[in-house]
Amino acid sequence: MELLEHIRETGSISAAGRAMDMSYRRAWLLISELNHMFQEPVVESQRGGQNGGGAALTPFGEELLRRFRGMENSVRAAIAGDLEWLEANRNPAEAAAEPQTES
Amino acid sequence: MELLEHIRETGSISAAGRAMDMSYRRAWLLISELNHMFQEPVVESQRGGQNGGGAALTPFGEELLRRFRGMENSVRAAIAGDLEWLEANRNPAEAAAEPQTES
Repeated sequence: MELLEHIRETGSISAAGRAMDMSYRRAWLLISELNHMFQEPVVESQRGGQNGGGAALTPFGEELLRRFRGMENSVRAAIAGDLEWLEANRNPAEAAAEPQTES
Repeated sequence: MELLEHIRETGSISAAGRAMDMSYRRAWLLISELNHMFQEPVVESQRGGQNGGGAALTPFGEELLRRFRGMENSVRAAIAGDLEWLEANRNPAEAAAEPQTES
C-alpha cells in the first residue's frame, strides 16, 4: 500500500521503489503480483511517449488503497480500548527492554 | 491464547502443550514470557499437592483471554464489508492456485 501511495505521488514504479529503498525489479514484481491478485489491474504503466512512460493507479487501485487505509483506521478504532488496557497492564520493565516500534 | 485456553481446560501446562503438539519446555517458556509481560501473572502453577501440581489462569489471565478473543471479533466485524469487497474482486485463477487457509 505504501508503494501504491508512492506510485500515485511520483507517477513512476522506479521512483516509488527508490522512495522505499527497493530495487526497480522488486517494486515491479510486487506490482505485477498485485495486478494479478484481482480481476482488474491496480497499476497501469505506459511505455514510451513524451515523458518516457510512467505508472498510475487505476480507479480500482485507488479504491483498493482507500479501502486498505480505511480498514487500518477501523481496526485501530475497534480495539483502541483494549490496546489501552493492555498498555496499562504491561510490565514497565519488560516494555523498556524491548526495541521501540515505529508509531 | 490457544495455549491459555488449553491450560484452562486441562489444568496443566504439559497437557496444554501436548494438545498443541508443543514440548513442555516450549509451552513453559511461552507461559513464562507471558507472565513477565504484564504487571500480574497470567498463569499460576502449583507444585506438588494431592494432584501433583497443576496450572490455572489467574483472574488477570481470564481477562486477558477474554479481551483477546473480543478483539478478534471486533476486528472481524470492523472489516467484514471490506473483506467481502476484496473477495468479490479477487482473481479466481489466483485464488484457486493458493493453498487453502483454515476457516
